Amino acid sequence: MDLTRAKLRQAAALMEKHGMDCWIVQFARETGLRSDPLGYLVGTAVTWPSAFLLNHDGRTAAVVGTGDSVQVGATGLWDVVRGYVATPRDELVGVLESWSPKRIGVTWSTSDDTADSITFGMYRMLESLLAGTPYADRLVAAGELAGEVRRRKLPDEIEGIHSAIAFTEQIFERIGAHLRPGISEKELQRQIQDWVHEAGFGFSWEELIDPIVDFGPRTGALGHTLPGDQKLEPGHIIHVDLGIERDGFASDLQRTWYWLKDGEVGAPEPVRKAFDATRAAIDAGMAVLKPGRAGHEVDAESRRTIIDAGYPEPGFAFGHHVGRVAHDGAGTLGPRWERYGDGPDVVIEPSNVFAVEMGLEVPGYGVVGLEEEAVVEEHGAHFLSTPQRELWLLPRKLR
Amino acid sequence: MDLTRAKLRQAAALMEKHGMDCWIVQFARETGLRSDPLGYLVGTAVTWPSAFLLNHDGRTAAVVGTGDSVQVGATGLWDVVRGYVATPRDELVGVLESWSPKRIGVTWSTSDDTADSITFGMYRMLESLLAGTPYADRLVAAGELAGEVRRRKLPDEIEGIHSAIAFTEQIFERIGAHLRPGISEKELQRQIQDWVHEAGFGFSWEELIDPIVDFGPRTGALGHTLPGDQKLEPGHIIHVDLGIERDGFASDLQRTWYWLKDGEVGAPEPVRKAFDATRAAIDAGMAVLKPGRAGHEVDAESRRTIIDAGYPEPGFAFGHHVGRVAHDGAGTLGPRWERYGDGPDVVIEPSNVFAVEMGLEVPGYGVVGLEEEAVVEEHGAHFLSTPQRELWLLPRKLR
Repeated sequence: MDLTRAKLRQAAALMEKHGMDCWIVQFARETGLRSDPLGYLVGTAVTWPSAFLLNHDGRTAAVVGTGDSVQVGATGLWDVVRGYVATPRDELVGVLESWSPKRIGVTWSTSDDTADSITFGMYRMLESLLAGTPYADRLVAAGELAGEVRRRKLPDEIEGIHSAIAFTEQIFERIGAHLRPGISEKELQRQIQDWVHEAGFGFSWEELIDPIVDFGPRTGALGHTLPGDQKLEPGHIIHVDLGIERDGFASDLQRTWYWLKDGEVGAPEPVRKAFDATRAAIDAGMAVLKPGRAGHEVDAESRRTIIDAGYPEPGFAFGHHVGRVAHDGAGTLGPRWERYGDGPDVVIEPSNVFAVEMGLEVPGYGVVGLEEEAVVEEHGAHFLSTPQRELWLLPRKLR
Repeated sequence: MDLTRAKLRQAAALMEKHGMDCWIVQFARETGLRSDPLGYLVGTAVTWPSAFLLNHDGRTAAVVGTGDSVQVGATGLWDVVRGYVATPRDELVGVLESWSPKRIGVTWSTSDDTADSITFGMYRMLESLLAGTPYADRLVAAGELAGEVRRRKLPDEIEGIHSAIAFTEQIFERIGAHLRPGISEKELQRQIQDWVHEAGFGFSWEELIDPIVDFGPRTGALGHTLPGDQKLEPGHIIHVDLGIERDGFASDLQRTWYWLKDGEVGAPEPVRKAFDATRAAIDAGMAVLKPGRAGHEVDAESRRTIIDAGYPEPGFAFGHHVGRVAHDGAGTLGPRWERYGDGPDVVIEPSNVFAVEMGLEVPGYGVVGLEEEAVVEEHGAHFLSTPQRELWLLPRKLR
């Protein structure tokens, strides 16, 4: 709970910048059933409608059903835990009266799903609880504050992500030793999932497509493709996109191998060229990943490298935040396309952690893809993952 | 997916009764990250903002980002899958134009958390997508429809719950064989959790308090109490409240044992009397658990039995729906107290599945608690669990 307490302190210090003096971090019920993107600031699940409030001076208060109050008290995060039996109205208004806030943040956002906490039903309930009090007209959207708190990683959060990455890199090692011609994409996916389950860890996106596994030339659509019955053959590129969740933190990494044909000592020229262009695009983006830059500026550097190398323009963004989940908050290192909303305009901050990625299709051979994690520091970014600098050739030769 | 398809058919048939001719079952994003109470009708998680629509004639349509369309198509649940790149506006309006609905349900509810799907941010996005079309003014709340669909179990859903119950009853067997004086509440909780994890199953509420374990006289507050360092001693009542999740279905059961002191051949009279009163209260409620009754009527029968036996009035409801989760939908077999909202007025329907429970504190000995699952049929209810009819005495004697 020490990390959660530190995050709440960090949030309190950011409230003035975001124009509020009180933040209803979470107003929710049955959060054991329905995970909430703000749950990581609350420390426990609740059954009854419950409000968790943070004041600009760092004071905290929880208004919870009496049945939940022992659990909430046990977190040690909430200075005051007010239990209710019939309705939370009196206790909630009581907290607000003691703090007298002028602008009360409520956590929702149209553009940032990781800051879109309150349901429509609970928002209506909140309005009805505050009806007739001075606080009814003081509600403002706290989505941007929630996003900044999520994006600005504390050292312990960076360490958590790093440890998810370290395990993912072990899995890539095992993949290299496990691959054999004849194994299918589905079989490799199942093996990787078994390794992750055996270690007691989870996945940072839906297991149906985690990992994504591609052997050889593409047959299906682009995007989040399901692994198929395609079997590995010599002359195939092998591409894996894997994200794991370890102790509440996520990784999101891509690696690429090539299986040599008989007599080959290296990958064919189009494969090597695509790998080199992919790596160069990662490096070009990393070179400008600095505080103060907008996401679209970073994307543009990477994107230009690909186009200059003679490939078609990539149909996806260069990067996204990583943290508690694989897509951890608004802010995209991507082009200003409508589908990315305001994401590409979000300015990069120190202690942001990004996944940076690039991929190219190599007709006749398969998909090259690289994805790394990087942390932003004052003067630039450095890799949190051990970046793949060379195409990995299989089978491994005895030397 | 056959069960999901059957649930969508069931829902389509109920739409007219609830006054709508189109239902936006889910409008959500990143549902792999944030589970949605309506996810069980959708069949897969999505990344981008996605709408899943059901027409009153049973036709279905999905509007999803192109990156999600393969996955969504693979479910086979959605007759039309319209992919979008920039914004879902045209595709969403296109579906509505083809169906011409007069009243469009959106899934939210203030009173029923399992029918409160859409977030405040997504509702705002939906309003803005429909702005300027005839559909903007046709949105109605679909929470009651969602609740009825959830409560009216199909045979395969009842079978799923039954199989979660069967495993839970195996755990109760193992508890009886495992208990020894000197074991602490925390140790027993951890052992039970290990058994559930080893079997590959989950928990139907938060693991911090699943199971709830009580040895001997109460020391803490009432409610969802954390297991403590209290060690089992002869003369203690042992009470366990355990819910597991197996293949997407939940159980919620309570069992009670008594550890004999040296020389005792049966439980002391106050313990026996409390057990008998608890069992009688379960039976009294079961006798009136029938279609057409309101929840508060059933609660009243059970409650009266306890009061007539000379005990203080219970501070909780007699029962709640069970299904995909332990508290599965609005509708409470409880008194008309403000904190239960409209729940006690919800009328019992055929194929509802309830947990029915009663508990009594026995000063000096501990907590007696029984909880069973029951399914409602045309003329009455029958137990899905094997009901505990006798207080279980430990240590087990060789005969």
